[in-house]
Amino acid sequence: MYKLTSLENGVCSSEGFFADGISAGLKANNALDMAFIYSDTPCDVASVFTTNKMAAAPIKHFKAKGEFKTNFVLINSKNANAMTGKAGVEDIDEIMECFSDKLNPVMSSTGVIGVRLPKEKIIAGTKLFDITQKNPANAAKAIMTTDSFSKECAYKVELEDGSSFNIGAMAKGAGMINPAMATMLCFITTDADVNAVDMQKILDEVTKTTFNAASVDGDTSTNDTVMVLANKKSGAYDKEAFRDALHKIMLFLAREMVRDGEGATKLVTYDITGAKDDKEAEIAAKALSDSLLVKTALYGEDPNWGRIASTIGASGVESDEMSLKICFDDVCVYDKGQVYFDSSMEAKAAEVMKKDIFTISCDLGISNGSFKAYGCDLGYKYVEINADYRT
Amino acid sequence: MYKLTSLENGVCSSEGFFADGISAGLKANNALDMAFIYSDTPCDVASVFTTNKMAAAPIKHFKAKGEFKTNFVLINSKNANAMTGKAGVEDIDEIMECFSDKLNPVMSSTGVIGVRLPKEKIIAGTKLFDITQKNPANAAKAIMTTDSFSKECAYKVELEDGSSFNIGAMAKGAGMINPAMATMLCFITTDADVNAVDMQKILDEVTKTTFNAASVDGDTSTNDTVMVLANKKSGAYDKEAFRDALHKIMLFLAREMVRDGEGATKLVTYDITGAKDDKEAEIAAKALSDSLLVKTALYGEDPNWGRIASTIGASGVESDEMSLKICFDDVCVYDKGQVYFDSSMEAKAAEVMKKDIFTISCDLGISNGSFKAYGCDLGYKYVEINADYRT
Repeated sequence: MYKLTSLENGVCSSEGFFADGISAGLKANNALDMAFIYSDTPCDVASVFTTNKMAAAPIKHFKAKGEFKTNFVLINSKNANAMTGKAGVEDIDEIMECFSDKLNPVMSSTGVIGVRLPKEKIIAGTKLFDITQKNPANAAKAIMTTDSFSKECAYKVELEDGSSFNIGAMAKGAGMINPAMATMLCFITTDADVNAVDMQKILDEVTKTTFNAASVDGDTSTNDTVMVLANKKSGAYDKEAFRDALHKIMLFLAREMVRDGEGATKLVTYDITGAKDDKEAEIAAKALSDSLLVKTALYGEDPNWGRIASTIGASGVESDEMSLKICFDDVCVYDKGQVYFDSSMEAKAAEVMKKDIFTISCDLGISNGSFKAYGCDLGYKYVEINADYRT
Repeated sequence: MYKLTSLENGVCSSEGFFADGISAGLKANNALDMAFIYSDTPCDVASVFTTNKMAAAPIKHFKAKGEFKTNFVLINSKNANAMTGKAGVEDIDEIMECFSDKLNPVMSSTGVIGVRLPKEKIIAGTKLFDITQKNPANAAKAIMTTDSFSKECAYKVELEDGSSFNIGAMAKGAGMINPAMATMLCFITTDADVNAVDMQKILDEVTKTTFNAASVDGDTSTNDTVMVLANKKSGAYDKEAFRDALHKIMLFLAREMVRDGEGATKLVTYDITGAKDDKEAEIAAKALSDSLLVKTALYGEDPNWGRIASTIGASGVESDEMSLKICFDDVCVYDKGQVYFDSSMEAKAAEVMKKDIFTISCDLGISNGSFKAYGCDLGYKYVEINADYRT
């Protein structure tokens, strides 16, 4: 038994963590574009990175370190430092000389691909950092790219024995959506007394059902990063409670990213049950959340269940029209060969689709595999944003 | 050595084949909506069908026959007879009673999913068929759904020994795009003296680099069908010449479908070379033709090479930024870590992207695998067409 309570202080929710955002002139109009997270004691690190073979320079730089502790993360937006070759990694080394007093400082970048970092601006920007500041909201704003709002989440976790730890996060990303903008970053800090091995294992697990279950356009960027820093100051830890809190935070942030998907107006949960196994449920759920035809039907608020059936069939998972059931929230339109889709039922289903947030459930009727994926609609605004992003 | 000459008569290009289209009142305004292909002698059949697990009733009906010869194909548009269960197959049996004088008549359907066939209209429509007619253009029109133009292609193939055979085709499909409209159908007739085993093998092969290399939105419908009928009347055959003619016809029709993609304004060839093997080249090429980010960049005529690099990296194939080369037609913008993308080069690349038809070439620099895929852009019109298709 444990109790979760929301906190307001993002990545500064745990004692000993500091963060702020400043403007280094990377973005126009003095917008915040550089952030740091500092810990006054060394932290264990867990991380998950993009599987993209063109992984950006900061990811190569991080991975070259092997196992390590750190107390400092530098983050910039506007430039992804991706497709910049060896020079991109050397640029990071040079910038990191500004933090020679820190323990294994790491860097994370997001923005346009294929352009070298503006080193001078970044180095000048680091002089504006004040590591005694606790301004998590500024840090969360500084890492935004096409995001229309910043994303933070934090909990206090009280354990049965009276001890407690905190865990807080910030993220950027308008969906898994824009490799030219280098998609999603998430930084999580905690004072839980979690060991590094547990922390990595739990992060890997939780990523599967949160960030990896969220899709705006099915893309995987060059810079996707989730990083957890643990300074262990609370002395408190419970594996289940930690996992649960991490899951709640990452699921909230993943859903916020989808909700903020470029041009998105709806957040839809694809709840697949009855699949051959969990892996097949995941394949079917993601096929739905990635399908252009389903996404445009959502935008049109059209309960086009034929597209849903066809997309599941095309995904290659074990399925059959005689065992499939499809519902929009609690309105079932198709059940094992029976079409419940007269004009009254269609009107009810269309009502569900008018909502901003709803669930499309598909019971494949094969076995017990299940998975939930999160997606959004695709409308004119998406085309507008993406047809000429760089300019 | 052999010589190919274009013919004008579509599926009626070979002696002994008859075809026509009529209006059975399935579409509004007396538009053509039912077609037949009739052969005055029995034909061997080769076929390729959708891999969708929710394959439509006509496909189940066809497959239940095992090996067979036929002399009659009935095709309707407007209703896909998909997700209609056992009743959908029984409906076909009932309709086929109208053709009890024919040899193993088969049916093919395309249109909306999840609605039973309007049997009475179809049966009444069959009375309008005149099997002495050779109106291939009417047949090609009758099978259209969201197509904005009909699609036919035919060749006379003259062999070195002075003998010759003909091969002709019609197809429908505005890209692999619309499962609610049941996507693509293609019917090919020939008087080549090809044996059934060869014919199936060649069709399977040629499908991979033609219809299976074309994508508008990466979807696989419930009704996708390619069928070849051979009456062998010419007595002439040469394997290489037959394969080449079939490939030319199917590639032309596949590219016509992409060009007719809903809302598409551009036809782009993704020419992948230097991949680990042909399979990996295919994966990379299709990742590009399916990528929303690449498709919207095409629409915006934005030579956003970073999205291309990132999409290849995300596809999971062996690739590295230090061996990759990217060109728009003959304008190379990135070569093994060197970015050639100053404003003059960007202007040149943007000029290429203004064209209706061009090639994006990516040399992965790993080994010798290659594949060409065909795709189109995604613009506002696609959203408009698909957001509320059923109404």
